[in-house]
Amino acid sequence: MDLHGSFHVYDTTLRDGAQQEGLNLSVADKLSIAQQLDGLGVGYIEGGWPGANPKDTEFFRRAAQELDLKHAQLAAFGATRRAGLRAADDPMVAALRDSGAGVVTLVAKSHDRHVELALRTTLEENLAMVRDTVSHLRAEGQQVFLDAEHFFDGYRANRAYALEVLRTAYDAGAEVVALCDTNGGMLPGWVSDVVHDVVETTGVRVGIHCHNDTGCAVANTLAAVEAGATHVQGCINGYGERTGNADLVTVVANLELKLDRQVLPAGLLREATRIAHAVAEVTNVPPASRQPYVGTSAFAHKAGLHASAIKVDPNLYQHMDPVGVGNDMRLLVSDMAGRASIELKGRELGFDLDAGTPEGKDLITRITDRVKVLEARGYTFEAADASFELLLVEEVEGARPSYFEVESWRVITDSKPADEALSEATVKLRAAGVRYVVTGEGNGPVNALDQALRSAIGQAFPEVAKFELIDYKVRILDQGHGTDAITRVLIETTDGVSSWVTVGVGANVIEASWGALVDGLTFGLRRQGL
Amino acid sequence: MDLHGSFHVYDTTLRDGAQQEGLNLSVADKLSIAQQLDGLGVGYIEGGWPGANPKDTEFFRRAAQELDLKHAQLAAFGATRRAGLRAADDPMVAALRDSGAGVVTLVAKSHDRHVELALRTTLEENLAMVRDTVSHLRAEGQQVFLDAEHFFDGYRANRAYALEVLRTAYDAGAEVVALCDTNGGMLPGWVSDVVHDVVETTGVRVGIHCHNDTGCAVANTLAAVEAGATHVQGCINGYGERTGNADLVTVVANLELKLDRQVLPAGLLREATRIAHAVAEVTNVPPASRQPYVGTSAFAHKAGLHASAIKVDPNLYQHMDPVGVGNDMRLLVSDMAGRASIELKGRELGFDLDAGTPEGKDLITRITDRVKVLEARGYTFEAADASFELLLVEEVEGARPSYFEVESWRVITDSKPADEALSEATVKLRAAGVRYVVTGEGNGPVNALDQALRSAIGQAFPEVAKFELIDYKVRILDQGHGTDAITRVLIETTDGVSSWVTVGVGANVIEASWGALVDGLTFGLRRQGL
Repeated sequence: MDLHGSFHVYDTTLRDGAQQEGLNLSVADKLSIAQQLDGLGVGYIEGGWPGANPKDTEFFRRAAQELDLKHAQLAAFGATRRAGLRAADDPMVAALRDSGAGVVTLVAKSHDRHVELALRTTLEENLAMVRDTVSHLRAEGQQVFLDAEHFFDGYRANRAYALEVLRTAYDAGAEVVALCDTNGGMLPGWVSDVVHDVVETTGVRVGIHCHNDTGCAVANTLAAVEAGATHVQGCINGYGERTGNADLVTVVANLELKLDRQVLPAGLLREATRIAHAVAEVTNVPPASRQPYVGTSAFAHKAGLHASAIKVDPNLYQHMDPVGVGNDMRLLVSDMAGRASIELKGRELGFDLDAGTPEGKDLITRITDRVKVLEARGYTFEAADASFELLLVEEVEGARPSYFEVESWRVITDSKPADEALSEATVKLRAAGVRYVVTGEGNGPVNALDQALRSAIGQAFPEVAKFELIDYKVRILDQGHGTDAITRVLIETTDGVSSWVTVGVGANVIEASWGALVDGLTFGLRRQGL
Repeated sequence: MDLHGSFHVYDTTLRDGAQQEGLNLSVADKLSIAQQLDGLGVGYIEGGWPGANPKDTEFFRRAAQELDLKHAQLAAFGATRRAGLRAADDPMVAALRDSGAGVVTLVAKSHDRHVELALRTTLEENLAMVRDTVSHLRAEGQQVFLDAEHFFDGYRANRAYALEVLRTAYDAGAEVVALCDTNGGMLPGWVSDVVHDVVETTGVRVGIHCHNDTGCAVANTLAAVEAGATHVQGCINGYGERTGNADLVTVVANLELKLDRQVLPAGLLREATRIAHAVAEVTNVPPASRQPYVGTSAFAHKAGLHASAIKVDPNLYQHMDPVGVGNDMRLLVSDMAGRASIELKGRELGFDLDAGTPEGKDLITRITDRVKVLEARGYTFEAADASFELLLVEEVEGARPSYFEVESWRVITDSKPADEALSEATVKLRAAGVRYVVTGEGNGPVNALDQALRSAIGQAFPEVAKFELIDYKVRILDQGHGTDAITRVLIETTDGVSSWVTVGVGANVIEASWGALVDGLTFGLRRQGL
């Protein structure tokens, strides 16, 4: 059933999502995210609170000039007018009106206690604030949605009043009234009952806005839709205050793939994985690898038994084909990996390890054993495909690819009074018969080593000029309290077209980083066909 | 209603949870986690697959001697006998029997297609495998649970056969038959319908085992309980393959706090936050800060408006009092912080900023402005209470605490052929009128600097011998592509009794780390009363 035109998918990453601990978005970040969200086909992008937040006033101003939105409308979020003031005279309301957004989403108190304690006004005045602000903005030509704050708690405390707030907004011209579980304490069955009651009793068009404090934000949202809501609010990647808002991609994927309701423009759900990760890059909050549908681990299989079954038919261990959301199936090589995992992983990387022949069987055994030994020493190949591929090459071809021999390296970081500290690395190596001694500088020891190393081998292999280190992860592996910890480093390198991950292990973090750097460049050079 | 005795809370972190990408547990890790889980009061701890997994055989052997379980029973996981073999003759079944576990949980195929394609046997033989293995283990004196693998998919493909598997297991003596949503594709309403049917049609005692592929693992589990399940499986912190298993603490907290069902021994839910974090330490997988109930952000409030309301009554923005799960409310100081946040945070840290007086108002204004300026430069105080406290002290007392003046520092890391690289730092500073030049060694530049710094000031202030750097986080803040990135470092220091977090910012990661280290020691010394 195509409800696309009449079903609202409403993203509030730039406003409610931004209340997540550790998430700080600049105006440029917000514009970039808005463009990405439009690529997913959401219907509404809540850009912020213009007037209250100078950054957001700026966002709406620049958005009008810089954004090219094909699917989404921008929504400006704000509050009903102040108590005792006319909406037409309230400068905050004016800021919403003047933001240029096609839609204004007003948050109103729908819980009597909040009206009394937080707003410190009367229940009647609160209704007047709703009525006045909504009708004022409608008269000025804007589309208006109402966010009924603390609705479910308010409904429990004083059902009649909560419903009255909804009716007041709707009668004044609000197109949708979104019921907000602001404190996040609801469970799906309760949401269902309340939404059914609201729909039957008031006839308003209902939206839903959930938080994940009981771990049920997505389920609560779906329950509301099944009870009659036709407008869902959430945040991409489930950003949001405390435990986050409902993950909008999970909600939409469930609606389209499980409940057969098309809510995005046709074909756009397949962009979900790419867009979710692109937004995570901008927010600089590492994406949750185990996020439903779009997480890097969402279709990653580790158990040896699962791999054996997947050899027969991927659907035996997957609830859907990941291509539907733009994701991939991955086989993980680890000490849980059986021979089937190694074989399938090899195939995934383009190696036919040929388990049918005696040589093939031996090869797989050698590889499996080496993986287990290395993993026991701290290596992980689960997230380092390039290092695993180098291992395969070594076993299959008899020797590890090598383009240079390292003599030594050293890195120094010096504080300088009044200046920023500088890291300086010196690398001595031989490549293509020539000895190089090169010094590189950087904003840290690993960066400096990377510069020096690439500078050195770049004289023999100019291709490395394209390579860039784009991600760096360190983990200290505690073998047990009091013993020496091992450090594991994962490095992601790109050549501008694709990227690959290598792993390094050592007692010293710089040593471990060096190992991952060398592998990263070796893999990159091999990929160039050298 | 106290169902504790007859309601099963079953944790499978050590078996199913271990299938999470990136999670690698040693036997020592598993023993430690098992002891922690027992502290939470779970009824069953699935320890692993003895016989199939040498590590797990070892776990059960050592558990018998080393664990002191007050609440939980250990469960050994394994498969039904091989096709065509008698259970009494199957060495894998023998390993389960001999594991010493009081309970054996057998996984059996309940989806006809899996029987045919994965097991490659007949539907009848699969039933015989179930019947034979269950009755054999019962006859040997063990309690048996059955995990009906792929149950919900199997029920849809061939309802009669799926139910037959359940009946067969139950009649052969299985105490519980857990319905597993192995591929994770279910939604709560569907789970409810299926569980109702199973309960009414077969009369077996139903358990539930969900995965989070649709973001509904917790909701699916609750739906099953409401439809009659009395045994819930999950993993602490939601560990597990792909998107993870149902987060057992979220499930239990919802059952106890929202649905009024006591399922843990009285009072133990309050240990949830402590235990969830303790387990995360062992797994070395960073805990999700936004995890419901126990996450560090679960009750953290950022929006200025929320802080204002919380000043009046915390319940205005929280769905429950975090003390119920052993968590705390936190006010976050950020550029979203209003004066109310600063005032409440100050109070939380023991400073009465006295917003009533003109001097107090000015003070709060100065602090709020400084926070905004610093945050624009890359600092964050959201996660660095100790650095914020030093800022408060500086504003309140007129000067930042200072115990030493730094002249310079330098750190060198050298590769050594055949040896592990070593980092060496030299610090020159003055403390208590004496000039110190000290060199420290470490397994990385920051570790070496920390050693040198503490060694230097330790001669003037012996108290620092107790301090230890226990956590270190780096984030590169991209101000925009192509410009110089800023690095932000968060360091956690402990004195063996409590711990504190400080932040450092700079273009060079070592410079940023130095800043956080100095603040960490300064804060620690001030706390000692110096």
